[in-house]
Amino acid sequence: MLIVMKKGATDQSVQRVVDTAEKRGYTARPIPGGDRVSIGILYNKGSVDAGHFMGLEGVKEVIAVTKPYKLVSREFQNENTVVTVGNVKFGDGSMPVISGPCAIESEEQALAIAKVVKKAGAVMFRGGAFKPRTSPYDFQGLGKKGLEILAKVRDEIGLPVATEVMDIENFDLVEEYADVVQIGTRNMQNFSLLKRAGRSTRPVILKRGMSAMLQEWLMAAEYIMEEGNNQVILCERGVRTFVRHSRNTLDLSVVPAVKKESHLPIIIDPSHAAGVRDQVIPLACASVAVGSDGLMIEVHHRPEEAMSDGAQSLYPEQFEKLMKMVNKIHAITGGEIF
Amino acid sequence: MLIVMKKGATDQSVQRVVDTAEKRGYTARPIPGGDRVSIGILYNKGSVDAGHFMGLEGVKEVIAVTKPYKLVSREFQNENTVVTVGNVKFGDGSMPVISGPCAIESEEQALAIAKVVKKAGAVMFRGGAFKPRTSPYDFQGLGKKGLEILAKVRDEIGLPVATEVMDIENFDLVEEYADVVQIGTRNMQNFSLLKRAGRSTRPVILKRGMSAMLQEWLMAAEYIMEEGNNQVILCERGVRTFVRHSRNTLDLSVVPAVKKESHLPIIIDPSHAAGVRDQVIPLACASVAVGSDGLMIEVHHRPEEAMSDGAQSLYPEQFEKLMKMVNKIHAITGGEIF
Amino acid sequence: MLIVMKKGATDQSVQRVVDTAEKRGYTARPIPGGDRVSIGILYNKGSVDAGHFMGLEGVKEVIAVTKPYKLVSREFQNENTVVTVGNVKFGDGSMPVISGPCAIESEEQALAIAKVVKKAGAVMFRGGAFKPRTSPYDFQGLGKKGLEILAKVRDEIGLPVATEVMDIENFDLVEEYADVVQIGTRNMQNFSLLKRAGRSTRPVILKRGMSAMLQEWLMAAEYIMEEGNNQVILCERGVRTFVRHSRNTLDLSVVPAVKKESHLPIIIDPSHAAGVRDQVIPLACASVAVGSDGLMIEVHHRPEEAMSDGAQSLYPEQFEKLMKMVNKIHAITGGEIF
Amino acid sequence: MLIVMKKGATDQSVQRVVDTAEKRGYTARPIPGGDRVSIGILYNKGSVDAGHFMGLEGVKEVIAVTKPYKLVSREFQNENTVVTVGNVKFGDGSMPVISGPCAIESEEQALAIAKVVKKAGAVMFRGGAFKPRTSPYDFQGLGKKGLEILAKVRDEIGLPVATEVMDIENFDLVEEYADVVQIGTRNMQNFSLLKRAGRSTRPVILKRGMSAMLQEWLMAAEYIMEEGNNQVILCERGVRTFVRHSRNTLDLSVVPAVKKESHLPIIIDPSHAAGVRDQVIPLACASVAVGSDGLMIEVHHRPEEAMSDGAQSLYPEQFEKLMKMVNKIHAITGGEIF
Repeated sequence: MLIVMKKGATDQSVQRVVDTAEKRGYTARPIPGGDRVSIGILYNKGSVDAGHFMGLEGVKEVIAVTKPYKLVSREFQNENTVVTVGNVKFGDGSMPVISGPCAIESEEQALAIAKVVKKAGAVMFRGGAFKPRTSPYDFQGLGKKGLEILAKVRDEIGLPVATEVMDIENFDLVEEYADVVQIGTRNMQNFSLLKRAGRSTRPVILKRGMSAMLQEWLMAAEYIMEEGNNQVILCERGVRTFVRHSRNTLDLSVVPAVKKESHLPIIIDPSHAAGVRDQVIPLACASVAVGSDGLMIEVHHRPEEAMSDGAQSLYPEQFEKLMKMVNKIHAITGGEIF
Repeated sequence: MLIVMKKGATDQSVQRVVDTAEKRGYTARPIPGGDRVSIGILYNKGSVDAGHFMGLEGVKEVIAVTKPYKLVSREFQNENTVVTVGNVKFGDGSMPVISGPCAIESEEQALAIAKVVKKAGAVMFRGGAFKPRTSPYDFQGLGKKGLEILAKVRDEIGLPVATEVMDIENFDLVEEYADVVQIGTRNMQNFSLLKRAGRSTRPVILKRGMSAMLQEWLMAAEYIMEEGNNQVILCERGVRTFVRHSRNTLDLSVVPAVKKESHLPIIIDPSHAAGVRDQVIPLACASVAVGSDGLMIEVHHRPEEAMSDGAQSLYPEQFEKLMKMVNKIHAITGGEIF
Repeated sequence: MLIVMKKGATDQSVQRVVDTAEKRGYTARPIPGGDRVSIGILYNKGSVDAGHFMGLEGVKEVIAVTKPYKLVSREFQNENTVVTVGNVKFGDGSMPVISGPCAIESEEQALAIAKVVKKAGAVMFRGGAFKPRTSPYDFQGLGKKGLEILAKVRDEIGLPVATEVMDIENFDLVEEYADVVQIGTRNMQNFSLLKRAGRSTRPVILKRGMSAMLQEWLMAAEYIMEEGNNQVILCERGVRTFVRHSRNTLDLSVVPAVKKESHLPIIIDPSHAAGVRDQVIPLACASVAVGSDGLMIEVHHRPEEAMSDGAQSLYPEQFEKLMKMVNKIHAITGGEIF
Repeated sequence: MLIVMKKGATDQSVQRVVDTAEKRGYTARPIPGGDRVSIGILYNKGSVDAGHFMGLEGVKEVIAVTKPYKLVSREFQNENTVVTVGNVKFGDGSMPVISGPCAIESEEQALAIAKVVKKAGAVMFRGGAFKPRTSPYDFQGLGKKGLEILAKVRDEIGLPVATEVMDIENFDLVEEYADVVQIGTRNMQNFSLLKRAGRSTRPVILKRGMSAMLQEWLMAAEYIMEEGNNQVILCERGVRTFVRHSRNTLDLSVVPAVKKESHLPIIIDPSHAAGVRDQVIPLACASVAVGSDGLMIEVHHRPEEAMSDGAQSLYPEQFEKLMKMVNKIHAITGGEIF
């Protein structure tokens, strides 16, 4: 941490900052500059709370230097974490694609879509059983029945399944049926849920919050890892900006930024970012090219009849075509970019 | 809902939109224009899912007209909801101020601050027992012990108390001790928690999510009301923008916007928006002037020693001075603006 | 500037950073920490370009410490700048209100509105002669004819006039007629125009760019001052965020932030922020309460017939009512907040 | 335009809206719904100003339907515009790459970089002679001398050159030397400059404003086209969001959105979006994969010594490697995505 003093701050005010730091066990070193003194806080373990210094007389600004995360950090662990689900791996340089409908609507629907996406090359099936919906009047998912259908898909079609868990109440249940549990955008900072996920034996897909800074997202992963579960897959799905031509703004720059800061794998969900089918294919291609560790793509065999998010679901033939491009692009950029 | 067709869309594609709407029980009425046809979806109850139409041939755009909220809407209930806690009222034209530290740290701290803020005119005490923290390594609150201290403050100082609930697990406990339960920014779309709050007998302060649209925030309140609890107080606390000179950007335009759309009271928390003490007083004055139904202000008797958010906590003497201005401004604008 | 090295960066890479800095004439001082070394760049005049260091081996992060502005800075000049136009003063603790229509449409319109706003207490008249419009098909202003009408308003009604200048071509002309020239949001970083304004004898109202950081805005003012014109009034008019319930998000936290960083006066234009009349009055009251140095409010005697921005223009009777509240609020908070 | 009335709006207020519309020459058709009446404004040429209706009694909301742009619209011209500079084409399915340093610093520097980028496959050279800089104290470019160097690069190396024009004063000069003139982010809504560019015989690269909506960007292009110049290349270079891990957020979803709305070619500048070298290569690959019509990439042979934006400039060997990937990815996705 660097504490920047006002121009002309008195020696006493500099000393008070130093004293405050030392009272808390830190080492403080004043650094004289041309116009003003700065004070470095050294040898701290973890980040220091700016609040201790910001109100002190003569203090102009407090600048964080140390990042607060540990376990998720590439400085802590240099080699990539590989998350393994059956024979699917995330983070080993392969390009696994998770696909399926937004919500599980019926056994027929789930099986029909699973067949199609498996044939096209998807290696994991997704589908919501518990659905977080903006409106209490919208379809909330089939609940346990949905989970049972997912299990059937796994048995009959032979794909591991991923589904969202919305609360601790249903965590045991979801964990029992799902191969991977997903924590959604709106729960990225539901810290109680994160702690529970940290005690799970299942890998966790942690979606980025709607307006989460990189650091907040990594700290959410830190909550999970700190409880003992290091099988965390980050998933970018678009952030909220002023833009109105797509539902959210897919932030692909976060991929190299994550790779630099963390060893965790990162996949991309272009479907929720786009909100409309026409944008999903180009954004999926871009997501592969930018160096992500996987994709999550929504597909529906009859999107006009989907109970949620039909507008963003690809038709099966679009998904097939996309998978061919995905594989070709990955052959070029995979392992090359970073 | 209005479905705008592309220029030169065929009669067949217009008819297909009409058929799709009618198959779902809506009335569809084509409206010819100069350049293109639009199709109004009429007599629908609640909002219509754009996804049913967006992928259809010839469709250029789908524009929502009906708002999805009902119970929170001023069209549903014209007169203001007044939320009552003891003899404190929110939404009746008064200017109740809730105050206290960010976190309960000890009995001595809580009592000391409560005395000070009561004397200055605060009518409710706040303090976190369960703290949502970005980092798992930061102080997470005293938990049950914190709730017991809050109860003691109520008994000894005579102020009702408000505190945050982070999950369903602890809801019964928090409900037992708190006069008002608060749902925090990061849980605004924790729908399981909202439903539980809807079954509570306590009034709920619902903070706005970090990047919540007005409509999403009102829909979160709708979740609570739909379960039977209509004692909901909205609380604006700043939203995330590109701005870096304050922690969040306090969005005061949301006050007249809420007043227009909803009958629920809205209060402002300038402390979390600002993040630094210097901005709290001017923003608090502005919050009163803009016509809010109350304030929530952080105060600490020794902010440099606070265990969280000390930088934004007012000193007792600042709070006293603020309260005088608050009352004078409210005397001018209260009941005048809307 | 602080250069943070990676954990385990070699002594050579630290030395290379030091050498790079010294080759450019800076003093570099390594600061050992617990986990990593940081290097302070000291005694630099003005800000240092991060680009010189960011690509060097072992460098993790480069953090700016020194602010790039000088003349606008409160550290450069501690006392408030007072901008004077006739007997109107901005920055002396008074609350001058500038008012008028969005665009000058005709002599009758301008005179009618000027009479009304003067009577209600406005001390300066505004009105666009050259209008920056998003669409080339929208009304672009009356041009020189508009300026002549403004001059007539000044002569007949006795109010100084403010109007926007859009380019250097028309600067001489605008300067001849206007008492204050305004640089609009979309031109905040039109550096050629800023330099020309810096050579003007007229005071300048510099509106904040649609997504300008505080630092960028102050640097735009620095461009003007650096050319010799220190009569600069900053004007906040809302910034672009994800929010849709108001046209822009009025950022009132920028007022205390400007006051802390700069000696320049800052006024608020709630009309353009709101975009709709209903929000203008509460936001104007808040703008006074937050401690601004003035207001700019759009008024039209027949808003439904306005050629631009009618929806945000107050009716004369609303403006009268607003002025009464403005004065009362200012009597409470003026000179008290900072 | 659709005017949504409040629930229970009277027949008189509906009639007043109809009358207001008809007085302005529009056709208004009331559309009864379940809860409320909406009124469609039909047969209008161009967009209608919402301000005429928003203040009227009983009006709840005004929703724009018609887009204000004409010439740039794909509905106006269905086939892609191909912009031609010598034998370089933008919009014909090829993947032209423009490359060079941020600023022209010297003849040696420009020639050295031009040789390198040409060899790697770039087809156009870029370099700033007039530099828009946030600070008046930063290097402002070599001006006319820089233009002369650009001309020399064209003659000696055989690449057409692109450079920025900042104001009308220097437009004739820039036009004389440059093969393509660039209008920068900060001038996207400098309407006087746009009009001048519309009268130029040079193709124009129009960079997207820092927080420009798609519609505003297209309207800026409309300004140019409306004056007679239809050789406009749009250039996405990142927008401002809350994100801090990259300088700006590259918005790749704008590519399919532009393709849908307009016939103009769109290229991507990942260098300015990223701000740091490490992100440029992955973002450039993604920009090709998403279906853009070209790239603009900053390269410097000695980035640590660059006078501006060195941190984002690629080393020559990085650029070479990138060009190989660019061509391979384009071979897969070019002509396939849309």
